[in-house]
Amino acid sequence: MTETHAFTVKARDGAARIGELRFSRGTVRTPAFMPVGTAGTVKAMFPETVRSTGADIVLGNTYHLMLRPGAERVAELGGLHRFMNWPLPILTDSGGFQVMSLASLRKLTEDGVTFRSHLDGSEHHLTPERSIEIQRLLGADVTMQLDECVALPCPDEEAERAMRLSLRWAERSKAAFGTDPARALFGIVQGGTVPSLRLASAEGLTAIGFDGYAIGGLAVGEPQDVMLKTLEETVPALPEERPRYLMGVGTPEDILLSVLRGVDMFDCVMPTRAGRHGQAYTRFGRVNLRNARHAADPRPLDEESECPAARDYSRAYLHHLIKAGEILGAMLLTWINVHYYQTLTAGIREAIAAGRLADFAAQTRAAWAAGDLPARD
Amino acid sequence: MTETHAFTVKARDGAARIGELRFSRGTVRTPAFMPVGTAGTVKAMFPETVRSTGADIVLGNTYHLMLRPGAERVAELGGLHRFMNWPLPILTDSGGFQVMSLASLRKLTEDGVTFRSHLDGSEHHLTPERSIEIQRLLGADVTMQLDECVALPCPDEEAERAMRLSLRWAERSKAAFGTDPARALFGIVQGGTVPSLRLASAEGLTAIGFDGYAIGGLAVGEPQDVMLKTLEETVPALPEERPRYLMGVGTPEDILLSVLRGVDMFDCVMPTRAGRHGQAYTRFGRVNLRNARHAADPRPLDEESECPAARDYSRAYLHHLIKAGEILGAMLLTWINVHYYQTLTAGIREAIAAGRLADFAAQTRAAWAAGDLPARD
Ligand SMILES: [Zn+2]
Ligand SMILES: [Zn+2]
Repeated sequence: MTETHAFTVKARDGAARIGELRFSRGTVRTPAFMPVGTAGTVKAMFPETVRSTGADIVLGNTYHLMLRPGAERVAELGGLHRFMNWPLPILTDSGGFQVMSLASLRKLTEDGVTFRSHLDGSEHHLTPERSIEIQRLLGADVTMQLDECVALPCPDEEAERAMRLSLRWAERSKAAFGTDPARALFGIVQGGTVPSLRLASAEGLTAIGFDGYAIGGLAVGEPQDVMLKTLEETVPALPEERPRYLMGVGTPEDILLSVLRGVDMFDCVMPTRAGRHGQAYTRFGRVNLRNARHAADPRPLDEESECPAARDYSRAYLHHLIKAGEILGAMLLTWINVHYYQTLTAGIREAIAAGRLADFAAQTRAAWAAGDLPARD
Repeated sequence: MTETHAFTVKARDGAARIGELRFSRGTVRTPAFMPVGTAGTVKAMFPETVRSTGADIVLGNTYHLMLRPGAERVAELGGLHRFMNWPLPILTDSGGFQVMSLASLRKLTEDGVTFRSHLDGSEHHLTPERSIEIQRLLGADVTMQLDECVALPCPDEEAERAMRLSLRWAERSKAAFGTDPARALFGIVQGGTVPSLRLASAEGLTAIGFDGYAIGGLAVGEPQDVMLKTLEETVPALPEERPRYLMGVGTPEDILLSVLRGVDMFDCVMPTRAGRHGQAYTRFGRVNLRNARHAADPRPLDEESECPAARDYSRAYLHHLIKAGEILGAMLLTWINVHYYQTLTAGIREAIAAGRLADFAAQTRAAWAAGDLPARD
């Protein structure tokens, strides 16, 4: 009962809820967006700037960190929190997703997956047990089970095979994790877009018992409505009192619509990756600062933003930095985007607390649809 | 007498002095190191971080800014200070040095220089008058005359030709600048490594009369002792009551030894460029963070530094970021280097005030020579 990672639902509005996921390192306010710190850094951001946007937790990638600098190395150096100078909670993924998308010469067996590093071709073997061990070496506050994520669309038999394998790996992960009151272990629901498979996965995981439940295998190429329908079928099968984490999602709209369907946690590279490519997420929707329409525009990106990067620099300057390939362009736009994602989730939390999430969602989506400020005369 | 850019020498120690160069936007404490903000950004740094290192002034490059986004564009946007969100003084160079080093198809005449942009091949013409106009459009607090800088070594006749041309351009620059009590205009001493030419240049410029005197045409490939000897011959010919600016210099040691010879102001891309390439300037000398000796080292770069980037991250982490090509590596090392240059000049100022610059120089050079911390057992 007094586990330090206890999750408490504080209020509900329809299927949406606000909650707190407590760790010794800090409390994660949900719905939460977790900036992605792939290789031990949220790209182009100082950790204190990440914190200043309101982020309570970041994600670290097991695949990248196990290859460079190595999990044992990070452990010797005092763990990932100290390594990256981020004192608040960290969730690490299992490594499985990146093995599938980045590594070469993958070979999947019941035991685990063998692959070659995309960095130097070295061979590695990742099992559910080794993934848990790596995440413990990193010092993760939230550990994810190793699973197999298939690309969509895929045949039902393939989705079922991967889901059943992921369930067996979930059991092995739980056994390897043991009991650790200071840390949380999340299982991952698979099953493609087949409702019966998602239900079977959710039931199987619930029977094993996890501190939280992730929904994996979405945002892998399927249309948004397919993702949302799968959520509607899956979320009700998950325990009410545990956090629900939709992996790898997504756009601001994806997040808003998923919260409305009961999701509590998100991660995505979109805000950071888009920032390095001249794209800004704003209350006006996505704005392409590469566009020449901004070249002579003295206005800030969003004068009402609480993000200094969105307020203290002109659109013309941001455009200039991006055209010139200046690192500061990536720094400012990444900051703007991560700040916007945190502003959005903070707004969502406030709206749920006030019982007006539907209104908030409608207004927010209308503002996105209205688009960017009109060009100046 | 009440010019806002008045320079006051506050104290002397041998040939070295501390002073204040006052502008409406702020006071520059000399000896001063000016971080280089080439294209409207000190690369990989937020302007507030630049300021936090103790920098009172930054340099902007006329060549880069005239080509992109264009001087008239910057003026329309409210000037360079507003454009780059740097409210303190800015010195702009004349564009001449970069035309010679970066542009193609240069053609030099008495009137000025015609060249093609390295960005898009467009043709441009830069004269002393246009350079002054551009710098006024940018809103520079310190304007530099257009000069011709020759590579060293060079024949005496060539050094003399360029020096005489630069003197005629100095007169035209002064005429074009007119009187502007809010801004300063600096002339540039040329003459290669020929003492008589340097003296003729200094006398000619002094006769025209400038708010400050730069020493150009050094740090262009010559050995350090040649540079220092040229300083020793040139500085005494410059007016005592005006600031002296050694352009494009240099290493920490170059700066220290030049201050000892009476120089007040410096700029150089070294701290920023080295930071993007994994090199750190520290009280231990230059440290190569790419080196594998740092890979498992939990120690900060310099635990006694007042720079958070030098204190709050391990050498192992900095090494990791650089090996992984992470932007944060460039951000942290650039910050460390600019901070170190400011710490050095602040230390120099304190030592001059205390009349112990010789001791400070000896101790500082001994620490550099002793090198980096020994590897851990
Ligand atoms: Zn994503
Ligand atoms: Zn230099």
